[in-house]
Amino acid sequence: MAKHIGKQSIRFTSAPYFTAEAAVVGKKEGEGPLRERFDYISTDSYFGEKSWEKAESTMLRQCYDTVLKKAGKKEDDIQFLLAGDLLNQCTGSSFAAKDSTIPFLGLYGACSTMGESLSIGAMLIDGGFAENICAMTSSHFCSAERQFRLPLEYGGQRSPTAQWTATASGAAILSRKGIGPRITHITSGKIIDAGITDSSNMGAAMAPAAYDTLMTHFKDTGREAQYYDAVITGDLGRFGHEILAELFERDRLKMPKVFTDCGILLYNIRAQDTHCGGSGCGCAASVLCGHIIKCLREGMWKRVLFAPTGALMSPVSSMQGESIPGICHALAIEFLEEN
Amino acid sequence: MAKHIGKQSIRFTSAPYFTAEAAVVGKKEGEGPLRERFDYISTDSYFGEKSWEKAESTMLRQCYDTVLKKAGKKEDDIQFLLAGDLLNQCTGSSFAAKDSTIPFLGLYGACSTMGESLSIGAMLIDGGFAENICAMTSSHFCSAERQFRLPLEYGGQRSPTAQWTATASGAAILSRKGIGPRITHITSGKIIDAGITDSSNMGAAMAPAAYDTLMTHFKDTGREAQYYDAVITGDLGRFGHEILAELFERDRLKMPKVFTDCGILLYNIRAQDTHCGGSGCGCAASVLCGHIIKCLREGMWKRVLFAPTGALMSPVSSMQGESIPGICHALAIEFLEEN
Repeated sequence: MAKHIGKQSIRFTSAPYFTAEAAVVGKKEGEGPLRERFDYISTDSYFGEKSWEKAESTMLRQCYDTVLKKAGKKEDDIQFLLAGDLLNQCTGSSFAAKDSTIPFLGLYGACSTMGESLSIGAMLIDGGFAENICAMTSSHFCSAERQFRLPLEYGGQRSPTAQWTATASGAAILSRKGIGPRITHITSGKIIDAGITDSSNMGAAMAPAAYDTLMTHFKDTGREAQYYDAVITGDLGRFGHEILAELFERDRLKMPKVFTDCGILLYNIRAQDTHCGGSGCGCAASVLCGHIIKCLREGMWKRVLFAPTGALMSPVSSMQGESIPGICHALAIEFLEEN
Repeated sequence: MAKHIGKQSIRFTSAPYFTAEAAVVGKKEGEGPLRERFDYISTDSYFGEKSWEKAESTMLRQCYDTVLKKAGKKEDDIQFLLAGDLLNQCTGSSFAAKDSTIPFLGLYGACSTMGESLSIGAMLIDGGFAENICAMTSSHFCSAERQFRLPLEYGGQRSPTAQWTATASGAAILSRKGIGPRITHITSGKIIDAGITDSSNMGAAMAPAAYDTLMTHFKDTGREAQYYDAVITGDLGRFGHEILAELFERDRLKMPKVFTDCGILLYNIRAQDTHCGGSGCGCAASVLCGHIIKCLREGMWKRVLFAPTGALMSPVSSMQGESIPGICHALAIEFLEEN
């Protein structure tokens, strides 16, 4: 295992390149601070479909078509399509990909899915199993609300710790050859169960997993947090991010100036009334594919640690009194000098 | 891509070994023809828990503990745990693994999950990212019935084409070094949508995917079906298997003497009143881990093509009139002469 460093991390021999990324989002996400960064903003939350589940698939399918076009690739050029989402049985992704001719690997990592798909995809490329892979995921506020919480029509009061499931999708193509930002290291997370049972407080449930994976990453790679220009977690939201920051402060860890979270970046949290910020697979995916990789391409950052987090629960497990186990997968994305 | 052959297949440079396998099943499965082959048969469908969902996790956790013990491995020896299941948000696996310290990659491939987890796991080993991986999955008749169909208490009439979701789990440890059966090739399936909308007829929905992946495997590898001592699909069941056999007959393809399906092998179909036979992630996983690998270890077979199939639908997608897309991942498992 020449490629394994430390306990949970991998240093790639030939770090895969981001060839193209795409982000397709809903109206509310298109009114946030990243509005200029997305490929398409739909003013129709149904995306022309008759149900929110179909809307989610159509949004993701549009994102997939867009990333192929931006990469100048045909389906035949791509060896694996890695995708998953929050809908029961991951139908958001499988119906988005049902007419695709690329071998399909379905994933479930809750809101960490974009990190998981890119991690596996990067290993498949570096391991010699693919020239190009496509990783993608989505979430939709309306399909998530009725599946996880309450029918929208009910107009339920939201908890102050609640986050807003983003209507958003992201897709990226990784390639063995290219120019631009590369995934140089990954740290794959283990499941961390801190015993939180409040399903309106996902940030608190996921923060311990983010802490565990990031600390493991720093230890495994020998890098300090400040090696990175930005450390950006998945969707802990405002409250989960505060918990994570406190844990790092306790350890006297110096974080870089840009230490934030995709759930914080996606919305003007107060003005858009999203309580603790964004969540959902599409949150981290659209912020990565719409914004973070662009910041690397534009030269604003050279080194980013992207660490999306997921809460591995279901409404049934919560109703049965189970805790909410969390997971976090970290990826070092760097613009290397030789580019 | 030296390792890629044809369009969708991979020939491993150093084919990963099966180090150990385990299968833990329920009472009905323990009364079927494979009863002597399982590690543990529970007479309690609750596995000592208070809900069927918790029962499923406990069964899988027991299977996981058993395979580690049989392999003589500690969690620290294993770099990735790959798992998924049919429950909403894959909680069967994530709660089974929540106290594990192995980096966790959650998957969703419906009843093809064991094929997907072993395929990715084999690539991670051959690619140099792991010494050992653990792949596992489960299903439970009672948790599946109430989630996908009707409450058990309702006592609904089953369609003649229906299959019986197995209360079963399987876990396998793959290793870079070892002796015994090895995964020499994989063919990763694309999503095939034949337009079937009857959710009581999964066999018909999945058969076209099995046909596509198997034909692609034969073409990519240059192997004829009869190269294998046995070609065993996942859980098409009796009716789906008949459709697949007819498709091969149409092509005048000669199948080996053992051409069957895990859903047919698991039960005495008529005597146990399972209509078209077994299904569920645990069906293919327990038949593989309990029976198929043993047949290779015992010298009965030298070469097996294992091809589990999955139906990528949800109750919501079916109620919204969507078709049932299928997928199938094939693995060539061989006892090579140099062993």
